[in-house]
Amino acid sequence: MSDPSDISRMLCGQTGDQTLRNHSIYTQMMETVLSFMKLTTRDQQQDPVLEGQKHSQAIREEEALLGHLMIQLVKHVESVATGGQKFQLSWPSMDSRDNVRGGQQAQSSRQTCQDTFIGYDLSNRGLDISSLYHSSFQDHNTYQRNKYHKENNTLGFINLGTSENKLCVDLLKERLRRSDMNYVDDNLLQYPDWRGQPFLREEVARFLTTYCKAPAHLDPENVVILNGCSSVFSSLAMVLCDPGEAFLVPTPFFSGFIFSACLYAKVELLPVHLDSRVTSANTSPFQLTVGKLEQALFEAKMEGKKVRGLLLTNPQNPLGDVYSRDAFDLHVIVDEIYMLTVFDEAITFHSVLSIESLPDPGKTHVIWGTSKGFGLSGFCFGALYTYNREVASAVSAFGFLHGISGIAQYKLTQLLQDREWLDNTYLPINRFRLQAAHKYITNELKALNVPFLNRGSGLFVWINLKKYLHPCTFEEELLLHRRFLDKKLILSPGKSFMCKEPGWFRLVFADNHLLLRSAMHRFHQVLLEQERDWTRKQLEDAIKE
Amino acid sequence: MSDPSDISRMLCGQTGDQTLRNHSIYTQMMETVLSFMKLTTRDQQQDPVLEGQKHSQAIREEEALLGHLMIQLVKHVESVATGGQKFQLSWPSMDSRDNVRGGQQAQSSRQTCQDTFIGYDLSNRGLDISSLYHSSFQDHNTYQRNKYHKENNTLGFINLGTSENKLCVDLLKERLRRSDMNYVDDNLLQYPDWRGQPFLREEVARFLTTYCKAPAHLDPENVVILNGCSSVFSSLAMVLCDPGEAFLVPTPFFSGFIFSACLYAKVELLPVHLDSRVTSANTSPFQLTVGKLEQALFEAKMEGKKVRGLLLTNPQNPLGDVYSRDAFDLHVIVDEIYMLTVFDEAITFHSVLSIESLPDPGKTHVIWGTSKGFGLSGFCFGALYTYNREVASAVSAFGFLHGISGIAQYKLTQLLQDREWLDNTYLPINRFRLQAAHKYITNELKALNVPFLNRGSGLFVWINLKKYLHPCTFEEELLLHRRFLDKKLILSPGKSFMCKEPGWFRLVFADNHLLLRSAMHRFHQVLLEQERDWTRKQLEDAIKE
Repeated sequence: MSDPSDISRMLCGQTGDQTLRNHSIYTQMMETVLSFMKLTTRDQQQDPVLEGQKHSQAIREEEALLGHLMIQLVKHVESVATGGQKFQLSWPSMDSRDNVRGGQQAQSSRQTCQDTFIGYDLSNRGLDISSLYHSSFQDHNTYQRNKYHKENNTLGFINLGTSENKLCVDLLKERLRRSDMNYVDDNLLQYPDWRGQPFLREEVARFLTTYCKAPAHLDPENVVILNGCSSVFSSLAMVLCDPGEAFLVPTPFFSGFIFSACLYAKVELLPVHLDSRVTSANTSPFQLTVGKLEQALFEAKMEGKKVRGLLLTNPQNPLGDVYSRDAFDLHVIVDEIYMLTVFDEAITFHSVLSIESLPDPGKTHVIWGTSKGFGLSGFCFGALYTYNREVASAVSAFGFLHGISGIAQYKLTQLLQDREWLDNTYLPINRFRLQAAHKYITNELKALNVPFLNRGSGLFVWINLKKYLHPCTFEEELLLHRRFLDKKLILSPGKSFMCKEPGWFRLVFADNHLLLRSAMHRFHQVLLEQERDWTRKQLEDAIKE
Repeated sequence: MSDPSDISRMLCGQTGDQTLRNHSIYTQMMETVLSFMKLTTRDQQQDPVLEGQKHSQAIREEEALLGHLMIQLVKHVESVATGGQKFQLSWPSMDSRDNVRGGQQAQSSRQTCQDTFIGYDLSNRGLDISSLYHSSFQDHNTYQRNKYHKENNTLGFINLGTSENKLCVDLLKERLRRSDMNYVDDNLLQYPDWRGQPFLREEVARFLTTYCKAPAHLDPENVVILNGCSSVFSSLAMVLCDPGEAFLVPTPFFSGFIFSACLYAKVELLPVHLDSRVTSANTSPFQLTVGKLEQALFEAKMEGKKVRGLLLTNPQNPLGDVYSRDAFDLHVIVDEIYMLTVFDEAITFHSVLSIESLPDPGKTHVIWGTSKGFGLSGFCFGALYTYNREVASAVSAFGFLHGISGIAQYKLTQLLQDREWLDNTYLPINRFRLQAAHKYITNELKALNVPFLNRGSGLFVWINLKKYLHPCTFEEELLLHRRFLDKKLILSPGKSFMCKEPGWFRLVFADNHLLLRSAMHRFHQVLLEQERDWTRKQLEDAIKE
C-alpha cells in the first residue's frame, strides 16, 4: 500500500502502472543502498577498536549487500534493455517541482542529501515532502535567517518576494496594544468549537456582509475559521476532490497553492495559461476569458483528467463574464484575500458575495483572511464562506489539526468590529500608503525603462525583464533571480507562479519607503551588471569572429 | 487514481484487491444513484413550469438512469451469487471508527445523510472525513453547543470527557493579563519561520532542559513548533511512515491520535492490548511489558504489516524497561504532554529527555505542549523535540499549514520564561489543586463503591463500571454512555480509547469543586437508574418464569 511517489506522479502525468513498476524497482534498490550506507555509517560511529569477530562479520555483511546491489543493478539494466524502461538512478522524481522553480528543486534535493546524510529514518513520502518544502520555501527560509534591518543588518536580505503588507504596522501595533485587546477569559484558554469561535464567525459574517456589499446578511453558520487561507484551500481540496482530481487555475497564481494542493490533498492544479500580449481576443494582458477556460477544460478531459473546480483570485482576475457562466458545473473557489488592497480609486471591487443570484451558490466557496488587507500574516487566520452547509460541515473537521488560538480569535474579532477605526483610520491610510508606494515603485520602474502591469490593487506589480534575458528562457530567468539573491534582494520569478512566458517577476511594493529605496538601488545594480555582462559577451564574440 | 476508501480499508484490514473491486462497483452504483437524485432534485429546484420538451427529456433521462441502476443491481447480485462476494448496499464501510465509538459511527453516518441530504458536492474522501469527524467529535460538539454554566445554564452539559485542566484558570488569566503580555512588534505580525519563532524554540529548549532534567542543554534547532500536539503527531506520522504503515500503541490511548493518524497520514495504530487484571506477569493494571510489545509486533508481522514506530504516553505508561530496549529498531514517539500533571508527591516523573545515553537518539521523538499541565488547550500549541535533524527539518514543512500566531508564540514564551511565577505560584498551586480534586473524586467513587485506577498523575481517573453492564459488552457500555448523556453528563467510554475490556470509562477531575459536585450528583443518579432498571428487569424475568 506504500505509495510515496504519488505527489510527483500525479503532477508529472506518468501513468500509474509505469510509476508503480519504476517505483518498486527504485525502492528495492534504494533500500539496499540505504541498508549498506547505514551499516557503514554505524560502523564509523561505533567504538574504533572493533573486536575481530564483529569486524569480520560487518565486512561479510557489507560484501553481501554490495553483491546484492550489483545484482539488482544488472537486473535492472537488463530489464531496461529488454522492456525499454527509462533508467533513472536518481533521487525520487519531482519533475513537477522542477517546473515550479526551474531546476532549483533537483539541486536542493541533492543538497539535502549531502547536508543531512541519506535519510534512512524518513519514509519515502517524508523525503518527498521535505524536499518539496525546502525547494519551495528556499527564499523564505533564507530571508528568515538573515533579514535586512535599517540599523542592525543593512547587509541582510530585502524581501520583495513575499506578498506582505508592511505599510501600516504602526497603526496595527497601536490598535493591538490598546487595553481592550488584552482580554482573557476561560473560553479562550480551552478547546474551541473547531469551526472557529462563535463570536469570530459572527464578526466575519458581519464584516463580509458590509465590505463585500452582500445583498443580505451573511450567516455565521456558513463560516469556518482555520489557521490561514492556505489551510482553508487545502481543506477544500480535500473535501471537494479525490486524490488525482484537478482544479483549473489561471496563471500566474500564488505559488503557495501548489504546496497546499500537494502536501495532503494531492490535487492537481491545471494551469489556464494566460497571455501577456494584447490582441483582438485578449483585450488586456493576462486576460481570463471563457474561451481559455473551455480550452483548458477540453484539454484536461482529453488527457483523462477529472476537473472538479476552478480557483480564481479576485481582484486580480476580475470575474466578469467568466464567473456568471455555470455551464462548466464546477466548484468555484474564489480567493478574495486581496479584497481590501484596491488602492486605485477608479476601481470598484466586486465580491462574489455581492452577486444577487449566484449561478450555483452550492458550488461557490469564498476564501478570505487578514494577511494582505491588514498585513496580519503572522496571525495565521483564514476564513471560508460557503453557502453549501455540507462543505462547511466537512471543512470543520480540519479545525482539529488547523485550529487557531483563542486569544488570536478574540483580537481579530475586536479588530474587525471596530468600524470607527477601520473606516476612519486604518482603511483610508492603508489605501493612501498603498497608492504612494505603488507610485514610487512604478516611477522608478519607468525611469529604468522596465515594463510592468498596472492593476490598481494588490501588494505587488508584475514586471517584465525579458529584455535582460539572453536568450529569453526559464533557465536565464532563474539565473537572473540568483543574481538578485547575490545582491541580497528577493524577487519572485514568474516560473514559481506557473507563468507560461519567461522573464516576468513579481515585485512587492507594500513596504516602507527607505527599504524600497535600498531595494531599488540593489535592483538597478543587478540590471546594470546584467547589461554589462551581456555587452561584454557580445564584444568577446565579435572579437572571436 | 482516485481511492477514497483507503482510510477505512487500511484500518479494517480488508485486502486491497477486494476493496478495490467492492469500491469500484460501489462507486459506480453510488454515482448512478447520485446522478439520479441530482437530476430529480434539480428539477424540483427549477421553474415549476417546465417546457414540454425539456420535461420529456428529463423523464427519459430518469428512466434511462433508473434502468441503468437496476441492471447494475442485478449484475451485482449475480456476481455475489457466483463469486461469493459479500453484498453491502450501505454507506462506505468505516468499521474502524465503529470500533472506536462502538457503533455510533454507523448511525451518525446515516444521520448525516438524512440531515444534510446526499452529498454529491463532496468527494468520496470528503464524505469519509466528514463522517469520521462528526462521529469522533460528537460529544465535543454537543458540549460546545450547550455548555453548563453555574449561573446561566445549569441544565447544560457537564463535560468530564475531555481531558482539560480547568483548575488554574484564575492564575493563568491573571498572568496573561499582565502588561508584559500585550507586546506586539512587526515580527509577530508577519510570516514567521515555519519551524516556530526562534525566541519560542529557544524558550522551549530551556524549559524542557530544566523540567525534564536533561543531562545537557537541549538545542533549539531540535525544536519544531506547530499548532497543537495532534498536529505534531500527524506530521511525525507523515514523515516517518508511508500510507498503510503502522505504529504500535498500548491501550487505552488518546482517541485524538486515531483521528490524527487517519485524516492525512493514513497510518494504522495497532493496539498493544493491556490487561486490567493483576497477575504474576502483570504486576500492575494495564502494565506495559516487553513481552506484550514483542507479541504485538509479531502479530503485526504475521499479518504483513510494516510497523515503523511505537507511540508511548509518559507519564501514564511509565517507560521502565520497555524504553531501554532498542531491539525493535522502531521509532519511539513519546507524548509527554502530561509531564506537569504529576500531583502525587511519591511519584517522580522521568522524561525521556533525562536519559543520559538514549538507546537510539535518532529514533526518539518527544511531543510536548501546554494543554494539560497549563490547561491552555485553547492556545493550540504543540512542540516536537527530536535529536534527529532530518526529522526536525521534514516536520518544519508542516508549519506552513499548521502555523501558530505570532502573538500566541510570544505569550507562551513569556509564560515559560517566568520561572519565578512558575516555581513559586503556578506549579505548586496547580499540584495542590490537582491533589484536592483527585481526592474529592476518588472519595466519591469509593463511597459509591466504584473501582478506579490510582495513578498519581494526569487529569483523569479510569473507572470500572463493569458491574453496571448486563451483559458486560461494548454495546452496553455505549448504552450507559448514552444514559450519562441523557443526564447531560459527558464521560468517555473505554471503547473510544481502544480499551480491550468493556466497562471502563475515563472521568476527568481537573475542574472546579462546584462543577464536580453537580457532575457526581448526575453520575450517581445514572448509576441508581441503571441499577433500578436492572433490578426491575430481573424481577420481570422472575415473574415470567
